Amino acid sequence: MPTQIPSGHKENSYQAIDSHTQQNNPGTKNRICQLFGIRYPVISGGMVWCSGWRLASAVSENGGLGLIGAGSMHPETLREHIRKCKEATEKPFGVNVPLMYPELETIANIIVEEKVPIVFTSAGNPKAWTPFFHEHGIKVAHVVASTKFARKCEEAGVDAIVAEGFEAGGHNGKEETTTMCLIPEVRRCTTLPLIAAGGIGSGAAMLASMGLGAEGVQIGTRFALTEESSASPAFKEFCTRLNEGDTLLLLKKVGPTRLARNRFFEQVQEAEDRGAGKEEIAALLGRGRAKKGIFEGDLENGELEIGQNVSQFKSILPVKTVMEELVSEYNRLLASLRPM
Amino acid sequence: MPTQIPSGHKENSYQAIDSHTQQNNPGTKNRICQLFGIRYPVISGGMVWCSGWRLASAVSENGGLGLIGAGSMHPETLREHIRKCKEATEKPFGVNVPLMYPELETIANIIVEEKVPIVFTSAGNPKAWTPFFHEHGIKVAHVVASTKFARKCEEAGVDAIVAEGFEAGGHNGKEETTTMCLIPEVRRCTTLPLIAAGGIGSGAAMLASMGLGAEGVQIGTRFALTEESSASPAFKEFCTRLNEGDTLLLLKKVGPTRLARNRFFEQVQEAEDRGAGKEEIAALLGRGRAKKGIFEGDLENGELEIGQNVSQFKSILPVKTVMEELVSEYNRLLASLRPM
Repeated sequence: MPTQIPSGHKENSYQAIDSHTQQNNPGTKNRICQLFGIRYPVISGGMVWCSGWRLASAVSENGGLGLIGAGSMHPETLREHIRKCKEATEKPFGVNVPLMYPELETIANIIVEEKVPIVFTSAGNPKAWTPFFHEHGIKVAHVVASTKFARKCEEAGVDAIVAEGFEAGGHNGKEETTTMCLIPEVRRCTTLPLIAAGGIGSGAAMLASMGLGAEGVQIGTRFALTEESSASPAFKEFCTRLNEGDTLLLLKKVGPTRLARNRFFEQVQEAEDRGAGKEEIAALLGRGRAKKGIFEGDLENGELEIGQNVSQFKSILPVKTVMEELVSEYNRLLASLRPM
Repeated sequence: MPTQIPSGHKENSYQAIDSHTQQNNPGTKNRICQLFGIRYPVISGGMVWCSGWRLASAVSENGGLGLIGAGSMHPETLREHIRKCKEATEKPFGVNVPLMYPELETIANIIVEEKVPIVFTSAGNPKAWTPFFHEHGIKVAHVVASTKFARKCEEAGVDAIVAEGFEAGGHNGKEETTTMCLIPEVRRCTTLPLIAAGGIGSGAAMLASMGLGAEGVQIGTRFALTEESSASPAFKEFCTRLNEGDTLLLLKKVGPTRLARNRFFEQVQEAEDRGAGKEEIAALLGRGRAKKGIFEGDLENGELEIGQNVSQFKSILPVKTVMEELVSEYNRLLASLRPM
């Protein structure tokens, strides 16, 4: 229920704290859990064609924070998903809003009307919309791939930062900074609550992220391949057969995107190898390729956006099992570490 | 002193153990420390033009394992560095041997004659030389960038595996698998002692690596920028001014290599953008560029091999300070983590 979340941005005052020392302060609850009113600092990414109400509500019901991905929805479809999500869970959930979205104002108003408590924004400047959401008592996290944009988040007054590395599926930063290198840099440049993303889908990677200075994780690929994900069964099954090296960051001239190897991938790679320009690549990409691949299951001609860690996941599990495995693996591995 | 290392491969029997659960078993000493007879499971990479006897002996003297990089040395130069290293420290140290080295047999014999206790091999098939080194009581670790080669290491009977991610400076795997994604995959496919490399230069990244399932770390960039590194002062100073995005993996058609942005980098990037073929790129690269850049300090025309985490390091420190910071940060951050 949205009202479980403390409303209003001004009521939250984060102390300026030493980077890296705060994240699991003894006696203090994890800041990401506090901010969003959740049990585990695990967020499911708002992935196009995967993150509908079923996935979001399942993640929230199991103690994480589920996000609905507005990027692949018409405004009224988003409203329907929000309503179904509220029916399916009383726990907090959020909506991911790409700030390049053509009908941004319409969906921002729907989010307010439907009393969604949390918004994750991405692909744009957080300054433009953070004040609007805050005025309506909505928490805002913004996704970045560099410290440059993390600083913009501070200026914009967001409540939390998601720092996403090169490993992540789909759209990606041009610096190619990996999660291992990005998280400590962002941790050093901001005192805001920090969520790591990119290559995280296991308790091991979650522990690594917390070691690097994050206070929570956003997980895409592992949740894209759950029973509750809206992706086509053919896409999910295809992904469980991928191996190391079967995703690469392509489309660098039009906007770096991590894709799985298929016929379309080979076409892009061939064009890029021979130095094709931005216009040719954009024409080859066309429109609607991600829907075709991920939602409709066209494994030859679709744009198959998925993260590099996909090769680790060989079965389609329910969200409940994924959450249990994440938490138990995290705790088991943490207990195995010893000081030097 | 080399004889501090238990000699002979057959004397070591590693139990087949559940992946991920062994690495810091209570009551058991870390396997990497045991294997090499060192205090901290921290290895300095055998980097061309950086890893001479000064760096290697300083790392070993301070509780890690220093490696001399044979890749940039004539055979008799290597012998000289080994002798000086033995004079400078009684602690164990090793030599990194790229298996593509033209005078491989000569340097393998020098390593045996000089009683070097540990060899790290890279860039080739570990089957060819592991038996030779083992016959002479030398421990062998092999560097890989994929599980495919990790399996070859098992077959070759190496004593430990270094799994190096996309973040690493210099030569790199074509799969572009990052450390965050690579370590759990390799951990799952082998029970051998596992050392993580690529993007590791802080206690935070070391903790992350151990969380991912590694039992030790190999650190390049952070040690390349120490006082004891043989790199030119101009190169080191240049590196401390690099920012995020200032290194990229280039030269993919001739052999993927992570380079820092300079005039040569821009030339390669321009050629690659317009689809230049393997021959043109190889001609542009020519020979001796890494020496020119790293050792001679030609910051315009040299090939500046350095890791992606270079942007985290803003000062040239002595090895002793680096080691102390690594260990204290690791311990501090580990103590701050809580179960979920």
